[in-house]
Amino acid sequence: MENPVLVEVLRGDAVESRHRGAIAVVDAAGHVVAALGDHQRPVFPRSAVKALQALPLVESGAAEALDFNDAELALACSSHNGEEVHVNAARVMLMKAGLDEDALECGSQWPRRMEDVAVLHRTDATPCPLHNNCSGKHAGFLGLARTLGAPTRGYVEPDHPVQLEARAAIEQMAGIDLSAMPRGTDGCSIPTYAMPLAPLARAFACFGTGEGLEPLRAQAAERLYNACVDHPFMIAGTGRFCTEVMGALGGRVFVKTGAEGVFVAAIPELGFGIALKCDDGATRASETMMAAVIDALLELNEDEATALRPWLAPPLTNWTGRPVGSIHAVAEAFAPLRGIA
Amino acid sequence: MENPVLVEVLRGDAVESRHRGAIAVVDAAGHVVAALGDHQRPVFPRSAVKALQALPLVESGAAEALDFNDAELALACSSHNGEEVHVNAARVMLMKAGLDEDALECGSQWPRRMEDVAVLHRTDATPCPLHNNCSGKHAGFLGLARTLGAPTRGYVEPDHPVQLEARAAIEQMAGIDLSAMPRGTDGCSIPTYAMPLAPLARAFACFGTGEGLEPLRAQAAERLYNACVDHPFMIAGTGRFCTEVMGALGGRVFVKTGAEGVFVAAIPELGFGIALKCDDGATRASETMMAAVIDALLELNEDEATALRPWLAPPLTNWTGRPVGSIHAVAEAFAPLRGIA
Repeated sequence: MENPVLVEVLRGDAVESRHRGAIAVVDAAGHVVAALGDHQRPVFPRSAVKALQALPLVESGAAEALDFNDAELALACSSHNGEEVHVNAARVMLMKAGLDEDALECGSQWPRRMEDVAVLHRTDATPCPLHNNCSGKHAGFLGLARTLGAPTRGYVEPDHPVQLEARAAIEQMAGIDLSAMPRGTDGCSIPTYAMPLAPLARAFACFGTGEGLEPLRAQAAERLYNACVDHPFMIAGTGRFCTEVMGALGGRVFVKTGAEGVFVAAIPELGFGIALKCDDGATRASETMMAAVIDALLELNEDEATALRPWLAPPLTNWTGRPVGSIHAVAEAFAPLRGIA
Repeated sequence: MENPVLVEVLRGDAVESRHRGAIAVVDAAGHVVAALGDHQRPVFPRSAVKALQALPLVESGAAEALDFNDAELALACSSHNGEEVHVNAARVMLMKAGLDEDALECGSQWPRRMEDVAVLHRTDATPCPLHNNCSGKHAGFLGLARTLGAPTRGYVEPDHPVQLEARAAIEQMAGIDLSAMPRGTDGCSIPTYAMPLAPLARAFACFGTGEGLEPLRAQAAERLYNACVDHPFMIAGTGRFCTEVMGALGGRVFVKTGAEGVFVAAIPELGFGIALKCDDGATRASETMMAAVIDALLELNEDEATALRPWLAPPLTNWTGRPVGSIHAVAEAFAPLRGIA
């Protein structure tokens, strides 16, 4: 099955580039409410499942024992820009766990924004693992390791208790056995397990609604959901889709990006979870796809619609700021999603 | 017609992302020797045609009148990294034309490499138009404008004599009338005209062989071809496909990238020009596609093959340097290109 073209990039009036993809909209019982393209092909969810990987941190009592606040829990679910507030919060999380950045095994990454890169250059500094977009997740893993009494060294390995807990949480939320699925190593060295879009979407339907979850799991999901929508800056940062869309929609949706064109969402008021993958891995396209899904499924008020618009049809400008084109979702492709809510 | 998947991105052993595309291999008479996918769909060639746009600079006598050397002519055909040598060469070209960077209308762009960004940050500087990857092309345009006695201001506009000359050169080389084709504005503000891959490839067959060209045009093409293959660092820079592949193949091929997944090549010993476009615009895929085309068409000696290998199957590592996957061309998709030379 060929996945359809879901997003086009225009230069002037002509289509310059095309992005294909697949999307699954699923309820907490696992019913596929709607789908575009092949939702059965396994995809690596990458960072899109950070909120699921953070469930053991909360339900084990580790988050409470370490006094992690909601902003820090949001950072544990984040792919952040490496801005000052993110770096500082990750450092504080490690301090609360009696650790420092030397415990991080995610590797170093330059901050995403040129302003933050400049701060390092001006002091002849280089980035450290705290700047890595995954440092909050890793600080959460380390906090869990400490509380479990597990070694902190090697916490990224697939058979470490922390990764086994994270994997079990994903399996239970998605209703899938990952042992037969392809395993890869993520950008931050933890394992990532491929799965079809439908169970991935189901996990976020359960995450957003609590339906079908044990009370402790439901409480943990609710706390993480609220932490993320209440602290959207911690989830990503300045100018980022997840931060702006969650900020503008005031708790109506949870959205989270993953590398290589993956995006997930939870929409509790509809009872849906959503998972999508742009075939070619482009973030610009996965963002537009997710904006188009939200636009198709939700009645938005004027402020919400205004906030979503730049992501629905981002204008393209060149080095002089001159408008040269735009990115847009293919309306006919998304038509099947309208009216299902 | 669906373009085939030409490049796959692997994480571990599993395919994580897929890139589709189309490729045309054409001779100087315009015969399509081989093609993958739909070679008739128009694509914006973007920076891939810089060497064609530089033809008027040479054949008008402007390059000689301004004493542009071969390294500077290569820079006129380049999409460079904004390294010190590129910035300085662009500045010298403008000085030779009695101008400075204020005449450039390409806009400012940060250098591509973090080392060069750091130099600016450490002196609290910001990039100027000389750092723009197109500054050499623009310095060439300005040199031509001066020699033609045309105004330098507005040299990026479609009806400026310089752009009319550049367009006419492309039309003649490709054997196509661009007046009915979509026009867009490029990243550096000049016009870019869409055309099918076949005429685009033909233009580079003519560029590489001189076949069918008027003597003055053939001389200009030969000078530019030699300038680029003799000064491959000027065409792109440290770690770049065009620089490394032209450097290693010692004049056997001319290759040039364009934005949004376009790539062209000339292979004089075979009499072929090549043009390709990755549907989704990804550079990582267009590079692998071009490496696979060269691998399929040319007998390479050991040194040449060694230099091409990292581009044929680039390894992917994560933030700690751990190998996590690779990019590769789909062997069956490229099979039709083997044995045609």
